[in-house]
Amino acid sequence: MGGYDWVSLTTDYGLSDGFVAMCHGVLARRAPGVRVIDVTHLVSPGEVAEAATVLAQTVPHLPPAVHVAVVDPGVGTARRAVVVEAAGGLLVGPDNGLLPAAGEALGGIRRVVLLDNPEWYADAVSHTFHGRDIFTPVAARLALGADPGAAGSTVDAETLVRLPDPVVTTGDGWVEAEVLAVDRFGNVQLAAPGTALSALGPALRVGGLRATQARTFGEAAPGELIVYVDSADRVAVAVNGGRAVVALGVAPGDILRISG
Amino acid sequence: MGGYDWVSLTTDYGLSDGFVAMCHGVLARRAPGVRVIDVTHLVSPGEVAEAATVLAQTVPHLPPAVHVAVVDPGVGTARRAVVVEAAGGLLVGPDNGLLPAAGEALGGIRRVVLLDNPEWYADAVSHTFHGRDIFTPVAARLALGADPGAAGSTVDAETLVRLPDPVVTTGDGWVEAEVLAVDRFGNVQLAAPGTALSALGPALRVGGLRATQARTFGEAAPGELIVYVDSADRVAVAVNGGRAVVALGVAPGDILRISG
Amino acid sequence: MGGYDWVSLTTDYGLSDGFVAMCHGVLARRAPGVRVIDVTHLVSPGEVAEAATVLAQTVPHLPPAVHVAVVDPGVGTARRAVVVEAAGGLLVGPDNGLLPAAGEALGGIRRVVLLDNPEWYADAVSHTFHGRDIFTPVAARLALGADPGAAGSTVDAETLVRLPDPVVTTGDGWVEAEVLAVDRFGNVQLAAPGTALSALGPALRVGGLRATQARTFGEAAPGELIVYVDSADRVAVAVNGGRAVVALGVAPGDILRISG
Repeated sequence: MGGYDWVSLTTDYGLSDGFVAMCHGVLARRAPGVRVIDVTHLVSPGEVAEAATVLAQTVPHLPPAVHVAVVDPGVGTARRAVVVEAAGGLLVGPDNGLLPAAGEALGGIRRVVLLDNPEWYADAVSHTFHGRDIFTPVAARLALGADPGAAGSTVDAETLVRLPDPVVTTGDGWVEAEVLAVDRFGNVQLAAPGTALSALGPALRVGGLRATQARTFGEAAPGELIVYVDSADRVAVAVNGGRAVVALGVAPGDILRISG
Repeated sequence: MGGYDWVSLTTDYGLSDGFVAMCHGVLARRAPGVRVIDVTHLVSPGEVAEAATVLAQTVPHLPPAVHVAVVDPGVGTARRAVVVEAAGGLLVGPDNGLLPAAGEALGGIRRVVLLDNPEWYADAVSHTFHGRDIFTPVAARLALGADPGAAGSTVDAETLVRLPDPVVTTGDGWVEAEVLAVDRFGNVQLAAPGTALSALGPALRVGGLRATQARTFGEAAPGELIVYVDSADRVAVAVNGGRAVVALGVAPGDILRISG
Repeated sequence: MGGYDWVSLTTDYGLSDGFVAMCHGVLARRAPGVRVIDVTHLVSPGEVAEAATVLAQTVPHLPPAVHVAVVDPGVGTARRAVVVEAAGGLLVGPDNGLLPAAGEALGGIRRVVLLDNPEWYADAVSHTFHGRDIFTPVAARLALGADPGAAGSTVDAETLVRLPDPVVTTGDGWVEAEVLAVDRFGNVQLAAPGTALSALGPALRVGGLRATQARTFGEAAPGELIVYVDSADRVAVAVNGGRAVVALGVAPGDILRISG
């Protein structure tokens, strides 16, 4: 039925080996008409929360797709494998917290099915590479229009493993929020939504340093800290022509305080 | 009319986040038949000249396409956004010097249009990610066959921001030229055209070191400096089995002297 | 006749320049219907054995294709360029040891043809970039269905340059094997086939350190060394939640001893 023209891939496999190409190959053999968008394969090895953030922020901008995400330190153990049906697409991967935020970003989770029907797997399944042997074969079937319900046993969506919500606390003239991500430019993204800035004025302090609330990088003097609403509608900190992550000395998971 | 089957992407977004995938997603949603060639997303952050060199050397080898290039430290400020119509394709990006050399490499610039028609943008435009919200939506329309002239106001091509020409000086038995690029093998590409070597003999000095003029790496002894005409028809320096950039201690923008 | 819908690319060109995109461009211009799978472009510069390992392990998982592989320190010298016809696909690249293992992995080598017919090359052939000017133009013709025999002179397959077989020695209760590869997770892959483990018990020593034979990472305690059969059916060593390559202090080409 219907099916999907697109599959997206998000992994921590890196780009130096043939792992990603093998996944492309599985899709090409089983669903040759499908087209693939690589979200990233450079998630830090085993960092589920990092991948969950990238995935949730990216999928709303992709076409309707089967989104395969594999950051899977528990591969081959009793951790469950699932397909998550959301309003705007399907998510396939390990049940370790990687998928729920993306499911919400795709309009909400409607159904969760365990991948316990081995007919959907590759003929031989390795113990350490379920991306190639389970998740992409399953994605190929789903893209071709198979009913997610035939992938295995439907389970209560409440049983999905979920990561803790990132810390966001707001008060009178301040916000404290967890660092979600740091991009290639050294910009520091916080868990606080963009609206958290509206109660604050233009002159701010971030982690003890002076900063300016602005809309974009070039509105501040070179070297100056800027607090802005980023393209994922989160509060973020940048330095015009520099690297905020260095100025602030933070990493994902740290708490940063912004005050007026 | 007609439009383009291909879009190319050149950015400094990196491959660790979802930024590149979001651009692919915008194209997939708006122009699903279009195919994408990624030139590179690893331009050094904000390095417009580096990106301009890669883009100009690559586009002549691509099929007719809409080439989107975004290295854009001035995103969200008053810097202009443009489509450059060349004989051999279209270029879309910020007006900061990134596009003119590629326009010349595509047969010459015929028309420049400002992207000031907001109907061509995404419904919501962020202040920091015009690659997703302006440049790829515009590229999708152009690929579908829209007239570049409908993207906004046509302006004089002379008003395009241009980078300074790289330094090349030739004399009797010598060439001085700016380092344009260093590749993954440590080979050092100079701005001088390949013809600059024809007046020089086989025994040369480069930056004070002994070198041999040759056609390819293996024509010199291991460890020896080679001066050759590279695959972009520029004078370049290599070390057989080594890294010329280390032997010479140079970086893009430095001047190197080759003498007979 | 027939030809191939897919071309794969394996190189050491890196992802920072336009070299890979130029190869995509050559394919797009000459065989626009063909689709490309990038195996990797991050082979260590000039490391033929590393590329041969990745290629041979990856191609069995790809669709029938023309596989272009270019790690070519001898480019432009007298080293031969070949197309290798295997039962399951075609391989195109330099004759420096890169292709034979992949030919065996594709069901065995049937025919070897030198690329000495210049009509199959690009109009202008550089001395340093045969990936763009010879190998991808040849791959485009082959994908369109041309007979490999028309690419040049057929030669005896025995004349192909071959890399030495990696060292594998087994005895009573022990295996010694060469390190083939180290992946992004620090897992160390040995040349020994998975069956070499069946004669060994669960408690092992690897390079003098205590280790456990297991099926997957999570079966050992965090930090513990695991010896397992990896997804390419080779003996491999991992650390649950850590990096075996650091614990063992080895690199490709080193010999590692596993004993019961």
